[in-house]
Amino acid sequence: MDSPARPAPAPAALLYYVAFSQLLGLAVVATTGTWLGVYRGGIAWESALQFNVHPLCMIIGLVFLQGDALLVYRVFRNEAKRTTKVLHGLLHVFAFVIALVGLVAVFDFHRKKGYADLYSLHSWCGILVFVLFFVQWLMGFSFFLFPGASFSLRSRYRPQHLFLGGAIFLLSVGTALLGLKEALLFELGTKYSKFEPEGVLANVLGLLLAAFGAVVLYILTRADWKRPLQAEEQALSMDFKTLTEGDSPSSQ
Amino acid sequence: MDSPARPAPAPAALLYYVAFSQLLGLAVVATTGTWLGVYRGGIAWESALQFNVHPLCMIIGLVFLQGDALLVYRVFRNEAKRTTKVLHGLLHVFAFVIALVGLVAVFDFHRKKGYADLYSLHSWCGILVFVLFFVQWLMGFSFFLFPGASFSLRSRYRPQHLFLGGAIFLLSVGTALLGLKEALLFELGTKYSKFEPEGVLANVLGLLLAAFGAVVLYILTRADWKRPLQAEEQALSMDFKTLTEGDSPSSQ
Repeated sequence: MDSPARPAPAPAALLYYVAFSQLLGLAVVATTGTWLGVYRGGIAWESALQFNVHPLCMIIGLVFLQGDALLVYRVFRNEAKRTTKVLHGLLHVFAFVIALVGLVAVFDFHRKKGYADLYSLHSWCGILVFVLFFVQWLMGFSFFLFPGASFSLRSRYRPQHLFLGGAIFLLSVGTALLGLKEALLFELGTKYSKFEPEGVLANVLGLLLAAFGAVVLYILTRADWKRPLQAEEQALSMDFKTLTEGDSPSSQ
Repeated sequence: MDSPARPAPAPAALLYYVAFSQLLGLAVVATTGTWLGVYRGGIAWESALQFNVHPLCMIIGLVFLQGDALLVYRVFRNEAKRTTKVLHGLLHVFAFVIALVGLVAVFDFHRKKGYADLYSLHSWCGILVFVLFFVQWLMGFSFFLFPGASFSLRSRYRPQHLFLGGAIFLLSVGTALLGLKEALLFELGTKYSKFEPEGVLANVLGLLLAAFGAVVLYILTRADWKRPLQAEEQALSMDFKTLTEGDSPSSQ
């Protein structure tokens, strides 16, 4: 504590893994765009192409942006904690707004076509993701950004926030896989088993989605890649320890 | 280290969560059985019902048993490490054998019916799960049960084994969800959107599957529920520390 805070360099392997996750994430978005462009006629709001807004927005918002929002604490290791928090919260806001456009697109498309809503496992999981995402954001904001929550309350809520965040991200990836499968079977039907190019491309997209989820999860769970405490956070943490455990480091 | 090893009681909340995970797991198996029995004519090897062996075996082997195999280190906290390891490995063997029966069932069914193999995202993910599961088991056996691997080699491989184990389990749950969706859309088609009882039951099964995956993951990732080191493991770990860091606890 007596030397000025020196930024610790990020582990080299972490940087490679983050770069790989971004390559995978961009490949997921690009493959989704290719699939919708080449085999589904592209994207538009005022036509039957409105449906295609749904998968594109969900992949960008709830998969790519949500995944990146979880990675900010690993990437921005030496910035002030508050800056990183604000970025984490903002990326989630962007993800939510984009996903909301995707949600409106599919409900509007169903309404115009007279299709039933919310009957499939994909739609049930999707609504669950939306509700959990929203509750998690509100709770995260109230505990960590809005002033007022005590240090001990934050410490106790933190592990729950981390677990639920990871779980919502994984459920988002799973829901995207279910939706992809649904879109394939509705359109291709028995042609799916003929190894049609669209089916093969969509299967590759599915594997890319699973790989993106796995790499993000790996980065988040590697213990030695966790964000190091900055000088002022260490001081705060020490103050808290002193308050709760007495002032001798060995007392208990 | 000078008092005899006293078994530490498991945290009460852990026991409730484990009980809840078992309820969910049994509910998953029972709902699968109900679905196949009530809506798909039951199970038999020598008929068109052979297909139904596939989902039942996969749910029992790759979801329920695999999930429980991951939980043994949390449940058996005070048994000798080796006993727990053997149980962990054996449960995986049972899971693999049951899953193998499920795999043979679907390939045999396809062959008899003249259906194509391995064209869908579900089948690609399923084969990936099988390969990863087998490699992971072989690696786990070689490093942790077969004598020979050094303490330092084990320590370095352990985090990779843990992450890959969790990832394979989650991929198994995701693959089951894709398979369920496929079976629903092939059979129900547009009736799915009419809220047919079979569709609703299968959606509930999907949510139960996701919930089982989430609760198992929660138990595995809670830091304060990790298995405590037993006396002899602590001694081993101390010996290793002494060897690598010198004999003074503060030296470095």
